[in-house]
Amino acid sequence: MEHISSNKSFSGWHKQYRHHSRALNCDMRFAIYLPPQANEKSVPVLYWLSGLTCTDENFMQKAGAQRVAASLGIAIVCPDTSPRGEAVADAKDGAYDLGLGAGFYVNATQLPWSSHYRMYDYVVSELPELIEQHFPVSDKRAIAGHSMGGHGALTIALKNPQRYTSASAFAPICHPIACPWGQKAFTAYLGDDRELWKQYDTVELLKQSTAELPLKVDQGENDSFLAEQLLPESLVMAAQKAGIVLDYQSHAGYDHSYYFIATFIESHLQFHAQYLAK
Amino acid sequence: MEHISSNKSFSGWHKQYRHHSRALNCDMRFAIYLPPQANEKSVPVLYWLSGLTCTDENFMQKAGAQRVAASLGIAIVCPDTSPRGEAVADAKDGAYDLGLGAGFYVNATQLPWSSHYRMYDYVVSELPELIEQHFPVSDKRAIAGHSMGGHGALTIALKNPQRYTSASAFAPICHPIACPWGQKAFTAYLGDDRELWKQYDTVELLKQSTAELPLKVDQGENDSFLAEQLLPESLVMAAQKAGIVLDYQSHAGYDHSYYFIATFIESHLQFHAQYLAK
Repeated sequence: MEHISSNKSFSGWHKQYRHHSRALNCDMRFAIYLPPQANEKSVPVLYWLSGLTCTDENFMQKAGAQRVAASLGIAIVCPDTSPRGEAVADAKDGAYDLGLGAGFYVNATQLPWSSHYRMYDYVVSELPELIEQHFPVSDKRAIAGHSMGGHGALTIALKNPQRYTSASAFAPICHPIACPWGQKAFTAYLGDDRELWKQYDTVELLKQSTAELPLKVDQGENDSFLAEQLLPESLVMAAQKAGIVLDYQSHAGYDHSYYFIATFIESHLQFHAQYLAK
Repeated sequence: MEHISSNKSFSGWHKQYRHHSRALNCDMRFAIYLPPQANEKSVPVLYWLSGLTCTDENFMQKAGAQRVAASLGIAIVCPDTSPRGEAVADAKDGAYDLGLGAGFYVNATQLPWSSHYRMYDYVVSELPELIEQHFPVSDKRAIAGHSMGGHGALTIALKNPQRYTSASAFAPICHPIACPWGQKAFTAYLGDDRELWKQYDTVELLKQSTAELPLKVDQGENDSFLAEQLLPESLVMAAQKAGIVLDYQSHAGYDHSYYFIATFIESHLQFHAQYLAK
């Protein structure tokens, strides 16, 4: 693991590292925020999954999460949003919603994607193993994300409820099999059989879920992707039908940007803290 | 004035505008954060001046200031750091520390700079006039900045103490006439007569100042520009000699980045709030 940078932040440290990922078959960068409490003891970890076009940097630079994480004693880990490097396939037309920066947190099965695009395995297994081996963290994990990363956080938590205390999302792609972003990505990464898509769809996973996993979702009402891509009404309905408690809040005036995330990140960290502390 | 964007943030609004600047003889973009209190009454304004290479966006996206500004009822205005556009001269070698993104908040007197580089007039007069004409703000103003913008904030406040209640800076270029960044920029913008440089040098201005202007400066001890470019010891000494109260604090481990600014921005806003409220 190669250390790239360190910045002191709210008496803790933001650090970036590069390492070779077995799951993704390429070199990857990630960021970790270690709160000051990590000097004294093992701290729990919130994994943050970012949205389309992002890297490990967007959340760390723009969300203002370190202040709250330092107060609550929670580490934050931000992976990148796709495999990276010249050997890694990208969308032929340079589209922002497929290929680099758009891994959708699935294990691709279709060529040319299947040789690197295994973000699901990376986030669920390889990255936490690496983090827990090298940093003063406990095995208490929560997971959260934004947009494509909100989809990633919810699906990963619902598929692995024993690995996470809680999951939350800002403006998640709730039902990718029913929206253009998801249909495009899943066709490329998973092929034409739509039955196979359901394993990575929050609404479909909720239909089968019996896990008592605390879930929180916030959505801005002025989000330009709301009606076509995000479909939160399908999420709320699926949770109700399944009898699963979902803390869903809709916020007048807020959009899809980090200004929205920064406004409500404190409530997400406090939400996770109550379960991480148990 | 052309409206570019709006993002709801902590129940207030971050907005960007473009307008034609008479002082700079070009079109300029600026950002304003209006706290929720601005819906009810006129609010005071903190002007934030950014450092080398920045635009109106860096502080608004990375400092986490909106949370505190919304709580205290203070608007924040971020101008760009230089004139902009194809007609505006830039450093011939593309250097980051001269020309575009590096206006140093002076009125240039030398060709080719003098036809546009008048950031001093823009920040002191034209921009506040525009802000006070178009937004629900009072004529209570504070000023702050980072690095080159810290230099700008301190010099502008010391030269116009009647216009500002207070001034503060993160890692300011304290003594530009004595450091490579300042000497390069002042030679280009102001010419070879070093006597003329002193009007834009905080240490020199402090020698003559009789204003009772509250000043606050924070500096990271792991700042890679500290010893060569920033020279805060000359600032502390000049303030002491002049009998001016300067709240100077040095912070172990912090660097020159926005992670440092985000950690201490709350204390700067609270510092200004006590004087803006008078």
